[in-house]
Amino acid sequence: MTFKVDLNCDMGESYGVYKLGQDEEILNYVSSANIACGFHAGDPATMRKTVRMALEKDVAIGAHPGFQDLQGFGRRNLQLTAIEIYELVVYQIGALNAFVKAEGGLLQHVKAHGALYNMAAKDAVYAEAIAEAVYDVNPALILFGLAGSELITAGNDIGLRTASEVFSDRNYEADGTLTPRSEPNALITDADAAIARVVRMVKENKVHTAQGTEVELKADTICIHGDGVNALAFAEKISKSLKDADITPMKVSEIV
Amino acid sequence: MTFKVDLNCDMGESYGVYKLGQDEEILNYVSSANIACGFHAGDPATMRKTVRMALEKDVAIGAHPGFQDLQGFGRRNLQLTAIEIYELVVYQIGALNAFVKAEGGLLQHVKAHGALYNMAAKDAVYAEAIAEAVYDVNPALILFGLAGSELITAGNDIGLRTASEVFSDRNYEADGTLTPRSEPNALITDADAAIARVVRMVKENKVHTAQGTEVELKADTICIHGDGVNALAFAEKISKSLKDADITPMKVSEIV
Amino acid sequence: MTFKVDLNCDMGESYGVYKLGQDEEILNYVSSANIACGFHAGDPATMRKTVRMALEKDVAIGAHPGFQDLQGFGRRNLQLTAIEIYELVVYQIGALNAFVKAEGGLLQHVKAHGALYNMAAKDAVYAEAIAEAVYDVNPALILFGLAGSELITAGNDIGLRTASEVFSDRNYEADGTLTPRSEPNALITDADAAIARVVRMVKENKVHTAQGTEVELKADTICIHGDGVNALAFAEKISKSLKDADITPMKVSEIV
Amino acid sequence: MTFKVDLNCDMGESYGVYKLGQDEEILNYVSSANIACGFHAGDPATMRKTVRMALEKDVAIGAHPGFQDLQGFGRRNLQLTAIEIYELVVYQIGALNAFVKAEGGLLQHVKAHGALYNMAAKDAVYAEAIAEAVYDVNPALILFGLAGSELITAGNDIGLRTASEVFSDRNYEADGTLTPRSEPNALITDADAAIARVVRMVKENKVHTAQGTEVELKADTICIHGDGVNALAFAEKISKSLKDADITPMKVSEIV
Repeated sequence: MTFKVDLNCDMGESYGVYKLGQDEEILNYVSSANIACGFHAGDPATMRKTVRMALEKDVAIGAHPGFQDLQGFGRRNLQLTAIEIYELVVYQIGALNAFVKAEGGLLQHVKAHGALYNMAAKDAVYAEAIAEAVYDVNPALILFGLAGSELITAGNDIGLRTASEVFSDRNYEADGTLTPRSEPNALITDADAAIARVVRMVKENKVHTAQGTEVELKADTICIHGDGVNALAFAEKISKSLKDADITPMKVSEIV
Repeated sequence: MTFKVDLNCDMGESYGVYKLGQDEEILNYVSSANIACGFHAGDPATMRKTVRMALEKDVAIGAHPGFQDLQGFGRRNLQLTAIEIYELVVYQIGALNAFVKAEGGLLQHVKAHGALYNMAAKDAVYAEAIAEAVYDVNPALILFGLAGSELITAGNDIGLRTASEVFSDRNYEADGTLTPRSEPNALITDADAAIARVVRMVKENKVHTAQGTEVELKADTICIHGDGVNALAFAEKISKSLKDADITPMKVSEIV
Repeated sequence: MTFKVDLNCDMGESYGVYKLGQDEEILNYVSSANIACGFHAGDPATMRKTVRMALEKDVAIGAHPGFQDLQGFGRRNLQLTAIEIYELVVYQIGALNAFVKAEGGLLQHVKAHGALYNMAAKDAVYAEAIAEAVYDVNPALILFGLAGSELITAGNDIGLRTASEVFSDRNYEADGTLTPRSEPNALITDADAAIARVVRMVKENKVHTAQGTEVELKADTICIHGDGVNALAFAEKISKSLKDADITPMKVSEIV
Repeated sequence: MTFKVDLNCDMGESYGVYKLGQDEEILNYVSSANIACGFHAGDPATMRKTVRMALEKDVAIGAHPGFQDLQGFGRRNLQLTAIEIYELVVYQIGALNAFVKAEGGLLQHVKAHGALYNMAAKDAVYAEAIAEAVYDVNPALILFGLAGSELITAGNDIGLRTASEVFSDRNYEADGTLTPRSEPNALITDADAAIARVVRMVKENKVHTAQGTEVELKADTICIHGDGVNALAFAEKISKSLKDADITPMKVSEIV
């Protein structure tokens, strides 16, 4: 039996003179690129260039909307109403989509960023607002969300295809949520251990938790990070290791 | 013989708690609404509401992109490169278009705002960048521009349908440009005189200039203003007067 | 025996072409103006004009810092760290203070805006961060806060003079907090009733609560609102009514 | 005879997660730090940290105001009115000054950034607006400007102390202006040649021009750059070379 999984990475998070990430190199190892849309990061120039690079390397493109908080990089919790969430997601998908169209591509998916992603994992109101926005702009788009989260539920409920996302470098709790970053054991720092966990998540839909138990989770797409000193080396390593384990990386649209 | 013309008005220029214009009422008298896209004015909430209102009243929708200068309302000249112009127009069309799609409508046109419009009237580099952006996002969009301007030329050259715009309340120079606002005779303040001029522009494609000569110009669409104490009364009056003069207001997509 | 109280109003909340409030007229009836600093509202032009107007009418000036959220007018809760709160308050006080200095005046106080004010009323971390920012910029500044709130406690603890603020148009709970706006009885809509309550708060430091009990609170300064259709009429009425009740409106620096 | 000169560098130009420059290291070799104020770069957190570092290393602090154009890093020309220029400079000086006060320091100078600096070098309206803003906030501040520019003239005319600035890595035209960056010979790329030119500018107030002639210019302060791969090495080298040439680097307040 063969397995398949999507490898995704956040991209296009530079802004003006400020450079972030190693997008061009990372694109060699991922199948999906989540491109920032100008609210938490990214600007029209960065969006255009990143879309173009992704298309050249045949990497599927997703919109990566976040809170309008460039100073906080979209990582700070903001209390919005459902309709405000809906509107900021519609806006950002549209902006990114225009660059995709101008470059002759097709938008594949939407993945919320940072605090918006995390809040929507647990808060059904946020989750439903995002799902509705994605659906209203284009019901063929695939919605990314933390495996087992409210966002996946909301996406499925409204009739979207969803991609359950797992994190290679994060520990999980017994209830399937991520171990909070405030905990000392939040991160899996050993690359080999991280990859072994990912392989098991893809093949068996299970992961060992911080409590020593096991939890089931679906793994359609694996999130890897594009910044940090080891990002590129890890991207290359996980891409190769998955193939060695008979897991074929491919675009999520061919999986879900 | 019957004549036809489009009546357009800038809309959706509120922002957050700040209200501007009488959009809902003005929509009763125009055939095209140019909706701000969040850079010089407008926010995602305003965009959604304005798009919805326009669709309910069967008014054609255009994107109204401007410089990213909320404090200056997009009226201050900014020196950008051609690619920067291109990128900000693509971004804003996309953002507005997503709301139009989400509400079940179709985007008809693009009209640049304020300083961007004025600079592109005279500067071929700006004009070509805008035309290329519109074309790349969707070649079926209609590009608005000052009658006789570089922007109309650029739009025609790239293969877009264009709508030549005239101003009911502005004086013209012998060369067909608008009399600068710094001149004492820049504005036509008498409503009846303004309307008589417009009727002649539509029927004869001619207007008397500030120099007493005549100049030819094409009049596919007439710009009226949505703010100011007399905006609503003038909108109603010009709409009625055009019909009385056997000029049928209609969406510009049915004209050009 | 004579009584005294400060009347304060938020001001300078226009932005670019967007006008808000009736600052010039309201200034005739208040003793302190809280001037927005460009984050939730206000821009450098508005700040300069508002400072100048306040000085001309001998109204004391305060900085009115808020979250950097123009679209939400600083009314949406944002989770920040203590040091982030500290920094945004220092920044905004400084910006406003420069205009006060340029116009030849002196800054009297600081009043946080909207969500920042409300969060700091209940959250000691936010309260202490604000108090420390004010103290570090200038320990002679007076810190405004909801009567009985964490912000008043934090201000007193660090050694600032504080001004306990009461609201003429809000109902109070048995514990001295404001009845949430989500409750049907949150607002006191009858002007005479509102004024009678204020007079009692100033003279007896007591107010009837929504539960029918009484609660003690200190009333150094009364907040009135500068927008809304009846704002100006109410400002005039409360100013006159206080004098009729032997309560002399004066700058808070002469009270606390 | 001994000579003295100030070495200045732009700093605090990071923003949120985006890091720019090697401020901490460069501070070891300069006598004045121009700290960005949040408009073209910098945020309240960066401002606080940079001010603190400069004070710890006894480097004089200046405000470094720019256009409100983070995406363009303040390098794009924007047409503003005199009063708009005045207001944005007052605002930014105030914001930075609050951090300087909070950290127990004193603001020494103001140096405009990027397009604002360049436009004010040639445009008397911009120059006078900046000079007036600086003077109104604090007439003891020193105004930096390109040697021989309108900005220096405006500063002197209003009664400010001014510091004439020269660039170590730029070529000069026969009229004393900088060779435009669009010219192939705009930059002096050889470090030794750059330093030799600077030494002569300080000691003889003369520099060879691109035309082969000589031009006189005053050199109170030398601008070095804080980003780029060789920035730190050049800072160390020029600092040492000046001392070797009997030129003592010192704060500009001790020079002009």
